Amino acid sequence: MSVTAAKGFTASGIAAGIKENGNPDLALVVNTGPRRAAAGVFTANRVKAAPVLWSEQVLKGGQIAAVVLNSGGANACTGPLGFQDTHRTAEKAADVLGEGAAEIAVASTGLIGIRLPMDRLLPGVEKAAAELSAHGGEKAAIAIKTTDSVHKTAVVERDGWTVGGMAKGAGMLAPGLATMLVVLTTDADLGAPELDKALRAATRTTFERVDSDGCMSTNDTVLLLASGAAGTTPAYEEFADAVTEVCAELARQLVGDAEGASKDIRVEVVGAASEDDAVDVGRSIARNNLLKCAIHGEDPNWGRVLSAIGTTSAAFEPDRLNVAINGVWVCRNGSVGEDRELVDMRYREVRITADLAAGEESAVVWTNDLTADYVHENSAYSS
Amino acid sequence: MSVTAAKGFTASGIAAGIKENGNPDLALVVNTGPRRAAAGVFTANRVKAAPVLWSEQVLKGGQIAAVVLNSGGANACTGPLGFQDTHRTAEKAADVLGEGAAEIAVASTGLIGIRLPMDRLLPGVEKAAAELSAHGGEKAAIAIKTTDSVHKTAVVERDGWTVGGMAKGAGMLAPGLATMLVVLTTDADLGAPELDKALRAATRTTFERVDSDGCMSTNDTVLLLASGAAGTTPAYEEFADAVTEVCAELARQLVGDAEGASKDIRVEVVGAASEDDAVDVGRSIARNNLLKCAIHGEDPNWGRVLSAIGTTSAAFEPDRLNVAINGVWVCRNGSVGEDRELVDMRYREVRITADLAAGEESAVVWTNDLTADYVHENSAYSS
Repeated sequence: MSVTAAKGFTASGIAAGIKENGNPDLALVVNTGPRRAAAGVFTANRVKAAPVLWSEQVLKGGQIAAVVLNSGGANACTGPLGFQDTHRTAEKAADVLGEGAAEIAVASTGLIGIRLPMDRLLPGVEKAAAELSAHGGEKAAIAIKTTDSVHKTAVVERDGWTVGGMAKGAGMLAPGLATMLVVLTTDADLGAPELDKALRAATRTTFERVDSDGCMSTNDTVLLLASGAAGTTPAYEEFADAVTEVCAELARQLVGDAEGASKDIRVEVVGAASEDDAVDVGRSIARNNLLKCAIHGEDPNWGRVLSAIGTTSAAFEPDRLNVAINGVWVCRNGSVGEDRELVDMRYREVRITADLAAGEESAVVWTNDLTADYVHENSAYSS
Repeated sequence: MSVTAAKGFTASGIAAGIKENGNPDLALVVNTGPRRAAAGVFTANRVKAAPVLWSEQVLKGGQIAAVVLNSGGANACTGPLGFQDTHRTAEKAADVLGEGAAEIAVASTGLIGIRLPMDRLLPGVEKAAAELSAHGGEKAAIAIKTTDSVHKTAVVERDGWTVGGMAKGAGMLAPGLATMLVVLTTDADLGAPELDKALRAATRTTFERVDSDGCMSTNDTVLLLASGAAGTTPAYEEFADAVTEVCAELARQLVGDAEGASKDIRVEVVGAASEDDAVDVGRSIARNNLLKCAIHGEDPNWGRVLSAIGTTSAAFEPDRLNVAINGVWVCRNGSVGEDRELVDMRYREVRITADLAAGEESAVVWTNDLTADYVHENSAYSS
């Protein structure tokens, strides 16, 4: 399934020796056509990894023949030599696949500031090409894991066409996008402009609304490749819906596997004067460390929600704010509401609803609790 | 010392029974004149506690006769009844002291969303007034502690006049101001406008540049009271310097006592095109949870510093950034610099220097590491 659920794609995942522990670390996804239209969305961080700079260039042509992805090293903050490494990776894949390097996208994830071991990576590209298969999607998804505990895939099937994808990401999850690598594939027959429009619409309300730890990565990459192999062109809205559905499913999996987290927190802001206000408030709540600690302690601490709302410039009056936690309106009109003892927080998913009482707009942002395990994982693991 | 180091002030600190554990929880600071000029700076949070709303009104008159401070309850998000509680507190102090309530400032700290026990607080005001003393500064500083492990005071003596102060704050430390209560006193003879100017200048580069956990409080209050008892009027610059020195000392103590922290991190941004850029970048670094975990693990993870810089809109080129940790330039020109093994991170104070190579401006922001103890303290303690 994964990236090979749609017709017209082969993939593989192998251990090239980039990771010292010998786990799979190199994936290859190839579009076998007949079309090779593509779109991409990248990190908004101004410190961009070499593969991001490279793949942004590739996408200017609107076509991707193949994507090489590696875990075990981000190739970020590695200077001109790091960029050469990415270039050599693309050229190697181009040689092996009989393509032009200008249509080979590259994505990397792992430690920042370390050069990749090219003496292992380049032979790995050959090995990955030799193992390409129309059933290789799972192996590819496994090979891009870093601290992920599970690999992440999703598929949506429609009438005669399919959108599938894989994702990796467990830390540095924050807007612009959500610190991850994602490859989506479809056999629908669409051109680059429609793919771009559908992908931007989908990421805006899915990956860009995941904020696990407020930290934005240097390597975020979301690619959408279309092979046209299904021989059908769906209506744009229908296609965009399917892409959004796959992205939402993958985004939910990212939250569910966030480093050290014990709770998945769905922050819904309603009654906002604008969608921008709703997103701003949602992110402010999602990034409040004190609240995230309270949720970890299963404490329905609505005062911390109000503190977070109060730091934004959204339209609201403090004495009209309402907050529900798991459906109990513990804060009404900016003050004490229903009994907080009524809130049941035993389960992994926690729902916070903040009503700004200022309009009709809304937005959902996902985050996680802040735990001692998060601290342990990120003070011991250099990433 | 503390608020009674300057002549013309009395203070006290007592246990009124607001805190269930019987610890001191009510402080009174009285300006015995001959002048009672005052200035104040308050939280930028739009959700403001009742005592903040009250004291902002008091300061419009430019005079404060006395300040009542309580720990054990923030009186935030308590609605109109909570505001009445603050009003009654001021009236009680006014009665006991023979003053007008319009010159009584009130400050509260503790749990959000809980009404104060007025049946204990009001008798406490009487008791505190009975214990007022020219040596009561230490007791007052002790009575405003919440999760603070130590009370915090500072004094600067100049030629014939003095500035002293006390502070409380250990969590919710973030700009606009730093989630704390601070009372500063001076016996210099100055009017409200000069006090206001000096206080705003001082807080801008001290309390507003402490960002322990990115969380902005509903109750931040910094008051400066002048008695004129020294009978001397210093030059403005000299006075402002003294106020800044006291604020810097108290701010440093706040960082040093932040909840669960094991490191105090001094983030200095140099080579910035503007001071605003330097502050923005400093805050972005100071708020990066992944970096704060790495520092906790004594890992000189400069990649996370670059990631944080990259999220800002400050003027810089990624390939010209330099980062030093404890004096070792581990990142040069956006890539690997000196050997990270040279960085000694055993001590509590850690210095991060980020050089944007874009100008001549600079700023310092203080923060703390992110630890499992922070998580424990804030998931168990409802505040």
